[in-house]
Amino acid sequence: MLEALITTIRPLDTEAMAAARLLHSRLTKPAGSLGALEDLSVRLAGLAGVCPPPLPEPAAVAIFAGDHGVHAQGVTPWPREVTAQMVGNFLAGGAVVNAFARQTGASVTVVDIGVATPLPDADPTTVDELTALDDLTAPDALVDLDGPVPTVPARRSAPDNTPALIRARIRAGTRDMTVEPALTRDEVLAAIEVGLRTADELVDAGAGILLTGDMGIANTTAAAALIAVHTGATPAEVTGRGTGVDDYTYARKVAVVTAALARHRPDPADPVGVLAAVGGLEHAALTGFILGAAARRTPVLLDGVSTVAAALVAAALAPDAVGAMIAGHRSAEPGAGAGLRALGLEPLIDLGLRLGEGTGALLALPVVAGSVRVLHEVATFDAAGVSEK
Amino acid sequence: MLEALITTIRPLDTEAMAAARLLHSRLTKPAGSLGALEDLSVRLAGLAGVCPPPLPEPAAVAIFAGDHGVHAQGVTPWPREVTAQMVGNFLAGGAVVNAFARQTGASVTVVDIGVATPLPDADPTTVDELTALDDLTAPDALVDLDGPVPTVPARRSAPDNTPALIRARIRAGTRDMTVEPALTRDEVLAAIEVGLRTADELVDAGAGILLTGDMGIANTTAAAALIAVHTGATPAEVTGRGTGVDDYTYARKVAVVTAALARHRPDPADPVGVLAAVGGLEHAALTGFILGAAARRTPVLLDGVSTVAAALVAAALAPDAVGAMIAGHRSAEPGAGAGLRALGLEPLIDLGLRLGEGTGALLALPVVAGSVRVLHEVATFDAAGVSEK
Repeated sequence: MLEALITTIRPLDTEAMAAARLLHSRLTKPAGSLGALEDLSVRLAGLAGVCPPPLPEPAAVAIFAGDHGVHAQGVTPWPREVTAQMVGNFLAGGAVVNAFARQTGASVTVVDIGVATPLPDADPTTVDELTALDDLTAPDALVDLDGPVPTVPARRSAPDNTPALIRARIRAGTRDMTVEPALTRDEVLAAIEVGLRTADELVDAGAGILLTGDMGIANTTAAAALIAVHTGATPAEVTGRGTGVDDYTYARKVAVVTAALARHRPDPADPVGVLAAVGGLEHAALTGFILGAAARRTPVLLDGVSTVAAALVAAALAPDAVGAMIAGHRSAEPGAGAGLRALGLEPLIDLGLRLGEGTGALLALPVVAGSVRVLHEVATFDAAGVSEK
Repeated sequence: MLEALITTIRPLDTEAMAAARLLHSRLTKPAGSLGALEDLSVRLAGLAGVCPPPLPEPAAVAIFAGDHGVHAQGVTPWPREVTAQMVGNFLAGGAVVNAFARQTGASVTVVDIGVATPLPDADPTTVDELTALDDLTAPDALVDLDGPVPTVPARRSAPDNTPALIRARIRAGTRDMTVEPALTRDEVLAAIEVGLRTADELVDAGAGILLTGDMGIANTTAAAALIAVHTGATPAEVTGRGTGVDDYTYARKVAVVTAALARHRPDPADPVGVLAAVGGLEHAALTGFILGAAARRTPVLLDGVSTVAAALVAAALAPDAVGAMIAGHRSAEPGAGAGLRALGLEPLIDLGLRLGEGTGALLALPVVAGSVRVLHEVATFDAAGVSEK
C-alpha cells in the first residue's frame, strides 16, 4: 500500500508554474507586490498542473484523535480523558476549530484513530446519525488488524457543517515509548492507511483543499520526539510547553523525549520505524493523510506541531510530497518552527497559536484562497486599460 | 468639526475587557492557546463596551484615491494617469482588492478625494448608475471649498459587491511639496471631513468593521514624509521602494522627502499643518476615516504604508483613537513597520505585500472575525463536560 502510494507522488509541474509567473506579470499590480502570495499561487499551479489552478474549495478539515501511553510519565497536567471529551466537543460543534470552520465554510471530519477512553454520548441528531453507516466499526471497538482497515465513509459534513465522525480506533492509545515501542509496524501502517483513505474520500467527495487537525493529550511529546529524529535537533530544542506545562513538567517532558530516543535510537531512514518507536496514531494517520493529498495533487494546509511532525515523516517517505504542503501557521511550539525550516516551508500566519485541532490551518485558509483567486479574477493591464511603468 | 470629533473619542472600556479575559479562561482551550487572537478579541470587547463584542460584519473597505504634485520630481516610474485608471479598475471589479473583497463579502467604496486626471469611462451598468445621485458633484469637478463638503451617499455596494464611487475631489492632486505646501489647511480639513463622513455613512449603513484602502501614484513619498515627522525617524529609514523603483529613483525619493521636510519643518504637534505641508488628500481623508471609526467605536483595520501614515496623524490628533485600530499587515515598505511600532500595534499578517488598495487589511479580516467568533461560539469547560487541568 505505502510503496504504491509513494510512487504516485510526483514533482510540481514546471510549465504550469511558469505560466502562473507570466500571468502574475500581466495583472494590474506592480510585479511582486503580493509578496508571498505570488509564490504560493505559483506553487499551487505547479501542483494542479494547470494555470490558474482551481480555487481551493470546498475545504475539508480532518482531525485525527489519539491517546498516548507516555501520558503516564507526567508530561502534561491534563487528564487523558480530555482527548475523548474534546472529540465530543468537536462533534457537538463547541470547539475553536468548529467556530473557525463555520466561518470559512470548511467541513470537519473527526477520526478516532486511537482514543483510549469511551467517547462521550453525543447528541444523537448530530453524531449517531452520521456514524450509523454499515462499514463503521462499533463504537469504541478496536479495528481488527487482521481484517480490512475500516472503510472511511464518503460522507461530507452536513450542510450546516455538522461534523462527521469516523471510527477507526487502531488501539486504545499508544504504548509508553519510554518503556517499549509506542506501536507495532502493523499498527503504524494501518493508521497510515486510514489517513490515506480519509484524504481519498474527502477529495472524492469534492474537497479542493485538505486541512490537518489533531487532538491527543500528551501528543506534543511524541511530536517533539519525531521532530528531533527527522531534523537532527536536540530534544530541548524542539520540546515545548504544549497546552501549558510548568517548569518542572517541562523539564520532565524533555527528559522523557531524551530517554525514549536513547532507548529506541530511531533511524530517520526508516520513517515507519520512527513512528512505531516514538510516534502517535494520529501522527501516523496524518502522515497517510498528507501523502494521500499529495498523491491526489490536492493542497494540504498544515496546522501545528503534531502536523509538522507528520509532515516530516511524509517528506522522509516521499520528498516530492512537500510540493503539496502549505504551512498554515507557525505554532508557538518550538518543534513546529524547526520542522517547517527543515521542510523549507514559510508559514502564512505567525500569531503565537498553540491549540492544534486545525485552528492555525483554518486561519490561513483565506490567504491560500486569496492567492489563487487573484489568478482567476484580476484584470490584466491590457484588459483594464491601465498603463505600465 | 475636528475638535468636536476628537472629544467623542474615548478610551477602551476596561470592564468589558476584563469580562472578555474571564470568558477566555472558561472556554474549552488551554489558557492563552490562541495567542494574539485573544488579546485582539479583548481589545474589541473594550472598544464595543460589551462582551462578547459584536461580530465584525459586514465589512466595508473605503479606498481613498488622490494624486500628488511631487510626482513631478520623478519619485516613481508609473505615469500619474494610473491613479485614475486604477479607480476605473476598482469600479469595474478588476483589481486585487475586488477579488479579496468578493472572497470575504466586504463592500468596496472608492472615494475620489483628489485624482488629477479624468476618471475613465466605465461600464455604465456598474458606475454611472451608482454615481447618479443628486448630492454628488459632477464627474471630475472639484468640490467648492466655500460651499458644503459633498454629502457622501449612504449607499452600500450592490449585492453582487459592485463597488460604489464617491466623487469628492478636493483638488486635482496636491501641490509639489518640494516647492510649496502640498495643501492648504482648509483643503486638509475638507478632506478629513470627507473621510469622517464616509466612515459615518458606512457605519450608519450597517458596517461592523471598516477597512482602509488607498490609491495614488507617488503617495508612498508623502507617506514617508508623514511617518518621518510623526516617528522622528530619518527619511532614509522610512522611505521604501513603493510599487517598484530602481536604485536611482529610490535615492531621488529619499532626497525629495529630505528636501520637503527641510523646507517646511513640519511640527508634529500640529498634525493638520503636517498634512498640509507634506501630506496627500488620501492621507487626510484616511485620517478622518480612522477618527470617524474610533468615534463610532467601530474597529478600523489598517492596510499599508499610506494608511499607517494617516493612523499616526489620527493618533497625534486623538491618542485614544489607537484603541480602534487593528494593524492588518506589515507592508514591505519600511515606513509601515516603523509607524506600527510607534503606534504600539502588532500586525496580524506579514507576507511582504506592498500593494495598498486595502488588500492587506482584507487578508487579515478573517483573523479578526475569528478572534471574536471564538467568544460567541466556543463552549465552556462546564457546558462541554471537558475536564480542566
